[in-house]
Amino acid sequence: MSNSARGVLLVVSSPSGAGKTTLCRRLRAEFSNLTFSVSYTTRTPRPGEVDGRDYHFVDTETFQKMVARDEFAEYAMVHENLYGTAVAAIEEALAAGRDVLFDVDYQGGRMLRQRFGDEVVLVFILPPSLAELARRLRARGTDAPEVIERRLEVAREELRHYHEYDYLVMNDHLERAYDALRSIYVAQRHLRPRLEHLARAILDAHGPASS
Amino acid sequence: MSNSARGVLLVVSSPSGAGKTTLCRRLRAEFSNLTFSVSYTTRTPRPGEVDGRDYHFVDTETFQKMVARDEFAEYAMVHENLYGTAVAAIEEALAAGRDVLFDVDYQGGRMLRQRFGDEVVLVFILPPSLAELARRLRARGTDAPEVIERRLEVAREELRHYHEYDYLVMNDHLERAYDALRSIYVAQRHLRPRLEHLARAILDAHGPASS
Repeated sequence: MSNSARGVLLVVSSPSGAGKTTLCRRLRAEFSNLTFSVSYTTRTPRPGEVDGRDYHFVDTETFQKMVARDEFAEYAMVHENLYGTAVAAIEEALAAGRDVLFDVDYQGGRMLRQRFGDEVVLVFILPPSLAELARRLRARGTDAPEVIERRLEVAREELRHYHEYDYLVMNDHLERAYDALRSIYVAQRHLRPRLEHLARAILDAHGPASS
Repeated sequence: MSNSARGVLLVVSSPSGAGKTTLCRRLRAEFSNLTFSVSYTTRTPRPGEVDGRDYHFVDTETFQKMVARDEFAEYAMVHENLYGTAVAAIEEALAAGRDVLFDVDYQGGRMLRQRFGDEVVLVFILPPSLAELARRLRARGTDAPEVIERRLEVAREELRHYHEYDYLVMNDHLERAYDALRSIYVAQRHLRPRLEHLARAILDAHGPASS
């Protein structure tokens, strides 16, 4: 009842190299109602990045104050920089009838679940194997061997938390994996609490006499 | 854990005329792994119906004995005839890795949920309105006005049980309704308990050294 017609908060996690970015981009391209929320970060803007569009760029003191005021639905330290999603931004999107896509790890997913309960759905993208993940990371050619080793360790750590997710998607075939991810999203929009106002409207309407 | 890799028991209910038959036929055509279980019935075979393929045709005494032995996962009386799905048939399908589609009403869905718990997913197809349902039933041209009135009363009764379903699908547009139904089915196959063996296999495999 409480979340009748409320939007979907879709969390997609995966080890680096499992194809999450490709899958999420495609999902956003197909569903205009699905948005990324603009995160807060303490890192320096890169060339071309616009404050308020790509991120809200803030200093560490501002960020810490927001943490102290419990204004973040989730936040994390990544490579020495803080990143966080403001509760207000999520509430705003939900109030506007939009769904929000989150690219966060299991800790971010856990915080979102604690704050938003069943409005959150947690999806984990599985690589076919760690060997295949290593192969993909090497094929990218962007990371030094020790960076790849570190990513694989992080991947193993992420994988150990698979039991915290609602759904698992094996990305051994891009089309199948995409079909699974979009199906999970579409199904969420049809959960009974989100659509029961439609059933009530049918029952409340005047009888079937009109035609 | 308990239902790791077990199949999906998909229950689709709707008032007569809401498009359930079309949607279910299409789903079975797309997914070869999804089967209808062969029901038991006490009604007389129609021309062309084959015992063991279309139904298991049994007499009332045999049916009642099966009820007494608790051999049915669900059963119901429809137009003076008994129809039921044997637990054994469902278990057989699940053991063979197949998913089973059930075309039953809320009472059948409830019995299946009681027996199989989370392995069952309950989907209700909503007509746009009772007025539209009346229009569709009249357009078919197969039923007398009083039969249509009776069907509409039954439809209203069915609709009152919307809160017993996990998912609601509004069939005001066939393609969208089909996309929703297939998404619910595909999503079920990716629920974590069904696929966590894949995550465990990745973690249990020897490290990422091989390539």
